[in-house]
Amino acid sequence: GLLGFPGGFVDRRYWSLEDGLNRVLGLGLGCVRLTEADYLCSHLTEGPHRVVAHFYARQLTLEELHTIEISAVHSRDHGLEVMGMVRVPLYTQKDRMGGLPNFLGNSFVGTAKFQLLFALKILNMVPEEKLAEAVAATQKPKKLPVDH
Amino acid sequence: GLLGFPGGFVDRRYWSLEDGLNRVLGLGLGCVRLTEADYLCSHLTEGPHRVVAHFYARQLTLEELHTIEISAVHSRDHGLEVMGMVRVPLYTQKDRMGGLPNFLGNSFVGTAKFQLLFALKILNMVPEEKLAEAVAATQKPKKLPVDH
Repeated sequence: GLLGFPGGFVDRRYWSLEDGLNRVLGLGLGCVRLTEADYLCSHLTEGPHRVVAHFYARQLTLEELHTIEISAVHSRDHGLEVMGMVRVPLYTQKDRMGGLPNFLGNSFVGTAKFQLLFALKILNMVPEEKLAEAVAATQKPKKLPVDH
Repeated sequence: GLLGFPGGFVDRRYWSLEDGLNRVLGLGLGCVRLTEADYLCSHLTEGPHRVVAHFYARQLTLEELHTIEISAVHSRDHGLEVMGMVRVPLYTQKDRMGGLPNFLGNSFVGTAKFQLLFALKILNMVPEEKLAEAVAATQKPKKLPVDH
């Protein structure tokens, strides 16, 4: 029920971070193999279970992305732990909510929202002022859903 | 950036509701054809643009669902208006948030959340008390995301 990035725990006695990540991705995404060059940032979660989340990002061609989406639907995890895969809209529509602002209003797991915003900023995927506007829009009180 | 059901506007001069719906679904979902027997409810939206949303639901086998998911990834709309397709978790995890409650905490377009809750209830897809608990859980103030 939450949006997040694929990943998992790595047993550091047996695996490097990248080997562990590629093992997990292999179950769901198939063809991509990430390396140290794709490392972006790390984040220490708060709360009783302190977890360090290491975040990797890779630029794909549209064709590569589509191949991953197709392989994800066919993967063994699909429908169990993973309920689907969605693209992130990088645009903002004229109404100032459509696209990225609405997407950021969804519910994210753990540090996923922080990781997404960090990647969008550091990889220059969204103009800085558009990103700031989108973040600001999701912090306004939302209209309540109409339930009759 | 919002969760919703596939659908669209129907020009009633030329199309029945079901023909119009099947035309739209044909662009994205491929194989399913809905009929009057699949009609569930209608809903008049509020606001300046008053729209009547007619909602149809069809029970699928797991195999049929998977076929639709595969065809959706291959469809022409994919990546443009539609950013992906996700399954709805019908379970609630022991922490009382994982699964359906978290899913309901996401952002929905128009009447989609109402339609989903109505379908889950009327089709007995989730035990009534679990559904009530999930709805109640999403109405509590949420913990704010931790942004460092």
